[in-house]
Amino acid sequence: MDLKQYFRERRDIIEKALDKFLPPESEYPEIIHKAIRYSVFAGGKRLRPILVMAGAEAVGGSIHDVLPIACGIEFIHTYSLIHDDLPALDNDDFRRGKPTNHKVFGEDIAILAGDALLTLAFEVISGHYNRSKGFDKVLRIINEIARACGTMGMIGGQVIDLESEGREIDFKTLDYIHNHKTGALITTSIRVGAIYSDATENQLEILTGYAEKIGLLYQIVDDLLDIKGDIKKTGKSVGSDIKNNKSTYPAIYGLEKAQQIACILAGEAKDYASNLGEKGKFFIHFADYLLTRES
Amino acid sequence: MDLKQYFRERRDIIEKALDKFLPPESEYPEIIHKAIRYSVFAGGKRLRPILVMAGAEAVGGSIHDVLPIACGIEFIHTYSLIHDDLPALDNDDFRRGKPTNHKVFGEDIAILAGDALLTLAFEVISGHYNRSKGFDKVLRIINEIARACGTMGMIGGQVIDLESEGREIDFKTLDYIHNHKTGALITTSIRVGAIYSDATENQLEILTGYAEKIGLLYQIVDDLLDIKGDIKKTGKSVGSDIKNNKSTYPAIYGLEKAQQIACILAGEAKDYASNLGEKGKFFIHFADYLLTRES
Repeated sequence: MDLKQYFRERRDIIEKALDKFLPPESEYPEIIHKAIRYSVFAGGKRLRPILVMAGAEAVGGSIHDVLPIACGIEFIHTYSLIHDDLPALDNDDFRRGKPTNHKVFGEDIAILAGDALLTLAFEVISGHYNRSKGFDKVLRIINEIARACGTMGMIGGQVIDLESEGREIDFKTLDYIHNHKTGALITTSIRVGAIYSDATENQLEILTGYAEKIGLLYQIVDDLLDIKGDIKKTGKSVGSDIKNNKSTYPAIYGLEKAQQIACILAGEAKDYASNLGEKGKFFIHFADYLLTRES
Repeated sequence: MDLKQYFRERRDIIEKALDKFLPPESEYPEIIHKAIRYSVFAGGKRLRPILVMAGAEAVGGSIHDVLPIACGIEFIHTYSLIHDDLPALDNDDFRRGKPTNHKVFGEDIAILAGDALLTLAFEVISGHYNRSKGFDKVLRIINEIARACGTMGMIGGQVIDLESEGREIDFKTLDYIHNHKTGALITTSIRVGAIYSDATENQLEILTGYAEKIGLLYQIVDDLLDIKGDIKKTGKSVGSDIKNNKSTYPAIYGLEKAQQIACILAGEAKDYASNLGEKGKFFIHFADYLLTRES
């Protein structure tokens, strides 16, 4: 399996769909649509929409049918980055090597652009399945997504992350942050793609187990890249977590042990994926990709 | 019709439902749930949920069946107030006589509390109808709500309002702000209550016509109260619009003419309501209430 080509093909489809679902920059009020598009098209890897599509394919579904859901989740991911970067939160001036939304458009528009993307996610998902069968599935999917990014999911993780700044935290708290701030939306991405494609409960269980492993793996590798990554590849300044006294896996467990844990997680993820047979092939390659990625 | 009693009865039901749909303060992470509850229970008039219920009743539906929708809309209204009050937007320290959310919990938590309420609205609505019939109606309702508070609705109005600060604006721009910033969610409140209760297209048209009139009426009276209101009743400092050089109906048309326009709008709204027969009685009283309210 040529993972690079797999990603390229899917990204092409996703970029076109994102463009289709977003109001054009010329739409009144122009400034908010410019701000939204600035961040959506700031060079994201589109991992979450790719996972939505992979969740669908793993159970025999169509990647095109889940595009509104995949794009909705990318909108939510983008909103969370815009709000996270705000001066009142992480106060980041750059993301992926480009000035953050509020540096370009001002804090007021950045707050509203985040709000608008969160809203648009639900508009797109609810609006594109209202003439198809399976309303109940779509309601369930909207509900899963909302729970994954609410106070018991992503926002909960952000709150504890904020509260933990500059403090020593225990393993349990660190896992809570990871599982909620990044893990919840990653797990939901795979699940909702599969749910829309009529996954059995057994298939959903396998995919959920897989997703939980790679969600944590993704975050640990992120933290490792922050220490030993190449700024030219990551687009982030190296060592910012240490500078900000941030609790991470490498900070708590040490570099070597954190790397071992990442390896073990990738192995466990692949064990789950192997239960899906031939259709689980992508997920096996994807776990290896996450373990060895350089950006 | 005793409007005071009507409001009291419905508010009692709404307060209980809001409490039921919100996570308790003791739920981890406590701080975000405290912040959410602080603003939801800060003394709002609950006009939007009352309008959802009235929309249902006007076409023969049950006020209890639409409670999750009514509460979802109140969550969205509260989120919009929290974000509007932020230093980067209107920078208000007080609302309804109480310190605003960010003054109590900090800007970071206030931003996340707003995000969480917007998310919770969709979680509650999608989660409470997934075992009932009429999934298609609920998807349509979610879609109407999302559109009403997106960049072509509420957020669009906020953007133009921000851009107009300290500038002279024309009638058309002022109407755009009013119709989008406050009007869109008010219109949607009545519509979605009726849609859930199987309104005919003719009934929906009448209710939409009514809602558009009272949405503007509501805003004009707000602006009039800002000039001649009693701070003890409104909880807002009088004259703040003039101080902030804000364009309003009284500022553009003069006090007397603005009052006349309000009267005309109330009359037109009542004309619409009279087409609903006996079931439209509340809406006739409500238009008079909006015209004569003191807070």
